[in-house]
Amino acid sequence: MSLILIIEISAILVGAFSGFIEARRKRMDLVGVFTVAFITAFGGGTLRDLLLDRRPFFWVVHQEYAILIFVLALIASPLIRKLRQIVSENLIVVADAIGLGLFTIAGVSAALASEMPVFIAAMMGVITGIFGGVLRDIVCNEVPMVFRDGKPYAICSFIGSCMYLLMLQFDISNDFALWSSATVITGLRLMSWKFDMRIGHR
Amino acid sequence: MSLILIIEISAILVGAFSGFIEARRKRMDLVGVFTVAFITAFGGGTLRDLLLDRRPFFWVVHQEYAILIFVLALIASPLIRKLRQIVSENLIVVADAIGLGLFTIAGVSAALASEMPVFIAAMMGVITGIFGGVLRDIVCNEVPMVFRDGKPYAICSFIGSCMYLLMLQFDISNDFALWSSATVITGLRLMSWKFDMRIGHR
Amino acid sequence: MSLILIIEISAILVGAFSGFIEARRKRMDLVGVFTVAFITAFGGGTLRDLLLDRRPFFWVVHQEYAILIFVLALIASPLIRKLRQIVSENLIVVADAIGLGLFTIAGVSAALASEMPVFIAAMMGVITGIFGGVLRDIVCNEVPMVFRDGKPYAICSFIGSCMYLLMLQFDISNDFALWSSATVITGLRLMSWKFDMRIGHR
Repeated sequence: MSLILIIEISAILVGAFSGFIEARRKRMDLVGVFTVAFITAFGGGTLRDLLLDRRPFFWVVHQEYAILIFVLALIASPLIRKLRQIVSENLIVVADAIGLGLFTIAGVSAALASEMPVFIAAMMGVITGIFGGVLRDIVCNEVPMVFRDGKPYAICSFIGSCMYLLMLQFDISNDFALWSSATVITGLRLMSWKFDMRIGHR
Repeated sequence: MSLILIIEISAILVGAFSGFIEARRKRMDLVGVFTVAFITAFGGGTLRDLLLDRRPFFWVVHQEYAILIFVLALIASPLIRKLRQIVSENLIVVADAIGLGLFTIAGVSAALASEMPVFIAAMMGVITGIFGGVLRDIVCNEVPMVFRDGKPYAICSFIGSCMYLLMLQFDISNDFALWSSATVITGLRLMSWKFDMRIGHR
Repeated sequence: MSLILIIEISAILVGAFSGFIEARRKRMDLVGVFTVAFITAFGGGTLRDLLLDRRPFFWVVHQEYAILIFVLALIASPLIRKLRQIVSENLIVVADAIGLGLFTIAGVSAALASEMPVFIAAMMGVITGIFGGVLRDIVCNEVPMVFRDGKPYAICSFIGSCMYLLMLQFDISNDFALWSSATVITGLRLMSWKFDMRIGHR
């Protein structure tokens, strides 16, 4: 199995997992658990594709991911308890940070392929990275966490997006720009988590 | 008037009616009552069409339904009290169950026409069947009922979708597959309501 | 600078400003403040364009407006306090009423260009006028204000839309129909505010 595939599946699973937890906290049933997990995992990319008018969606081409989340939802209640014992919180944060980096840069790339101007492309990167969680919180009837906790999550995504766009401007190879920017996002996110940094208006 | 037209109008009216009730419970004004009724009646199909990139929407082709809901909203307050006296709750549940069956199978058909893979087609059926109510609850600032009451509503829709897809796989005529699956959904829904069944994680 | 450009920027700034205030009331951070302001300013037009399948969005063609809101969000906290001292509430209501008129008629025009039937075109006008605020309230986890305060806001927008459509029916020049209808919406809104009128079901 290639590295990129492992990372991709990990990022989706982490998204779904965070949806499972939130849905269970809200005492949702099987239908809610599946829907919220699905929205959390794919909501950001789907909203981006709706805005860019891109089809087919990722989860249409790869219906196996949707089926995987469906199967996991069926066993979510015992699964979550088990996973929480096996998987340390650290591992979840790391996987989520990797996902944030990859989703963001994938979002910027898609926006550039659709000939978006640079600031909009950066916004599309951030939307892809964070709107899964935003939609999860809206469905769960909460003010979106990423809008109010003052932690640099969307900001890391935005900085990496700008870095990627800047590197492309200077004719740096796309591959290098892509991987280094995704790494910077993941690194910034982990650092800000490690040192419990806060930003913005409080 | 043909049977299918009567059923169609009934399903839309039941959707709108459930929107009226929820909007009035939230003490909304005329604008809210109309919008919530409209979203409840057409939200599921509209979201499906947005995801499938299908145009025009049902309510664009048939603007008479939108106008009907508008007129009903104008008289909603006295209407609801009156209707609650005339129409028994049983009748509403039956009409809603018929609507669930029809909307679901219409959703699966539309997805197949857009060449969706089977699991995604089943999901589109369920989305068409239940997301009117989900969007209604989000606009009314509630955790969607269908995600938390543990009653087999979406599940009935999903079972019928799978049955329809399976029958098509075995070269059964589309007409028969369509009507029998819609009937199964309606039947399952009514049975589960009659016997107050619960499923999923609680 | 042309008059129309001044009005356009004013309308967007008023939308963004109302987003700033709501986001700050919910104690959101920088990311939330920017997102809510952006959604309030552009949400109505974006939803309309999604429904009409029109691209590119206004804020894609004019990314300078998105950048402007981004810069304002960075200085939103002190900005809001300052603006509240300088700008009287009256001025905000007037600018918002002008925005309502312009956004509504722009929405109807766009719907007619996409060959929508008349009632749907009127609905698209109202959606363009009010759904920025509706989406703002949903993200902020509130029942949308415009659905429950019983004040004639959406109604003014709807009356103006109908007037515009009626004038076009009678072969009145588009320019005159457009400006007079927008003016009527703004006038009705200001009158209803001045005299604190209420309508609809309470």
